[in-house]
Amino acid sequence: METDFIRWLRDRLPPHPSLQVGLGDDAAILRLADRADTVVTTDLLTDGVDFRLAEIDPRRAGRKALAVNLSDLAAMAARPVAVVVSLALPQQGCIELAQQLYEGLLPLAQEYDVAVAGGDTNTWHGPLAISITAIGETTRRGPLRREGASSGDVLVVTGQFGGSILGKHLDFRPRVAEALLLNDRYELHAGIDVSDGLSLDLARLVAESGCGAEIDPDAVPVAPAAQELANDPRGNKSPLDHALGDGEDFELILAVPPAEASRLLSDQPLDVPVTRIGRCTAEPGLWTRDPQGNRQTLPPTGWEHVFDR
Amino acid sequence: METDFIRWLRDRLPPHPSLQVGLGDDAAILRLADRADTVVTTDLLTDGVDFRLAEIDPRRAGRKALAVNLSDLAAMAARPVAVVVSLALPQQGCIELAQQLYEGLLPLAQEYDVAVAGGDTNTWHGPLAISITAIGETTRRGPLRREGASSGDVLVVTGQFGGSILGKHLDFRPRVAEALLLNDRYELHAGIDVSDGLSLDLARLVAESGCGAEIDPDAVPVAPAAQELANDPRGNKSPLDHALGDGEDFELILAVPPAEASRLLSDQPLDVPVTRIGRCTAEPGLWTRDPQGNRQTLPPTGWEHVFDR
Repeated sequence: METDFIRWLRDRLPPHPSLQVGLGDDAAILRLADRADTVVTTDLLTDGVDFRLAEIDPRRAGRKALAVNLSDLAAMAARPVAVVVSLALPQQGCIELAQQLYEGLLPLAQEYDVAVAGGDTNTWHGPLAISITAIGETTRRGPLRREGASSGDVLVVTGQFGGSILGKHLDFRPRVAEALLLNDRYELHAGIDVSDGLSLDLARLVAESGCGAEIDPDAVPVAPAAQELANDPRGNKSPLDHALGDGEDFELILAVPPAEASRLLSDQPLDVPVTRIGRCTAEPGLWTRDPQGNRQTLPPTGWEHVFDR
Repeated sequence: METDFIRWLRDRLPPHPSLQVGLGDDAAILRLADRADTVVTTDLLTDGVDFRLAEIDPRRAGRKALAVNLSDLAAMAARPVAVVVSLALPQQGCIELAQQLYEGLLPLAQEYDVAVAGGDTNTWHGPLAISITAIGETTRRGPLRREGASSGDVLVVTGQFGGSILGKHLDFRPRVAEALLLNDRYELHAGIDVSDGLSLDLARLVAESGCGAEIDPDAVPVAPAAQELANDPRGNKSPLDHALGDGEDFELILAVPPAEASRLLSDQPLDVPVTRIGRCTAEPGLWTRDPQGNRQTLPPTGWEHVFDR
């Protein structure tokens, strides 16, 4: 019964300074920092699309459902405060599954200091769907937006790209602390997290900013997993293709004014490398330009949510 | 493609004074009123449980998914500000379905002055699931909680109960304006909305408040739809049984100190009737007590989310 499950869950939720009212009322109440704005993002993950429950420990699915939301808050340079978690569970074994999902997401919530403020737990005749909404707060530096990049800005990224399907798409670390630190210490013009593909998400950032971008293909940090996929004789993509289009890297792309970028790249203030991959152009569009100056159109690749296929 | 759908949706979203950043970034940004706390609630509705898509216009499902969330904010006496909407859509005809769902919820959002701040639109191999998270703000009178009722408080309800399956469960009006007005003008001790059943939700309110309740069965406002269901020879429930246990009435139960209750009942400040149905007792539990003083235990009935059935 839902009541027993809620009791089980309540026992596992630590108190949180921002949580005035948590589980057990009609809604949760959060007290955010003075003058902070409320930042809201939501992601719905489904069995067969975002993970395959037949192949993985459900804890990893629960963890991923929270992590992708935290990555969206990171992309806004917002401090995570709380999440609400809705589950549509297949009826058979639903209590065990619900507990496993929470056993996956609760440690991440605690690590990132996020309250689980409420949710809605249901069973039905369909497969598993997990919907999480994350609430964050802006910091004194304000939010980081997709818009705001301008011609001449340097494009930098955290971490490496490609091949996340081999494991990182489930176990990645959302770049929350990294985004908060960078937004606090450096002037950032725009940012986005890479959920659908480095080139596709970069195209979205520059489109919202009304500019374009050139990237140096040799500078893109390619993950070993991208190399591994490229080695598979059944595929026909290069490691760079994988890095540019695989998606679910959940790294950050940032547009940074040149002097700030030099300082940031020289400081390397994060545990993860920050790499210059290119620059923003006045002309809208996306190109590669190698160190020899050869310039080619770069068609954005990545995961597009295709309807009616 | 999701991009086209988002464009379609963006064109239908009016500006909202609290919405700093809406669709088109990694998260939405809301600016709430000074000193307001953030109130968050979420409900996930699924085909076959909360509605039957084969039998109804999808617009009514979309409307209901928003309305149940607004009802939860009403139960907290919170002012609705914004919602995020996540959809898991069956692949066939998914664009048309998504548009119909929004065509159902957008007019209600506009009527209740709620911004659609974002969402996540997906297709998959499962049936339709709709997850909505609503964000509200507390008013100067603070939130209304389930806890706070005490012995001697008068129990009042808005509207009528029972038989909502005949139509009200889809087309009800969330009691948002009613809750805000009552919380502003009267001293209310506790409140809840009736989603699962009048007796079951009343049991929850008194349990959270650490008291009990006696209700006068003759005083319960029974809806004509409850009478209609009771007339069905295939059923074996009285109109009162339906009123006490059907659920999805989405009316309010309020615990009000006696003098305030007298004033409220005499004022009748709402368009919908407010009715005294009983009072809170020091002893935990639920009873009926008729005007002749006959007292009987009342087992709470209503919709329990049963796992592993």
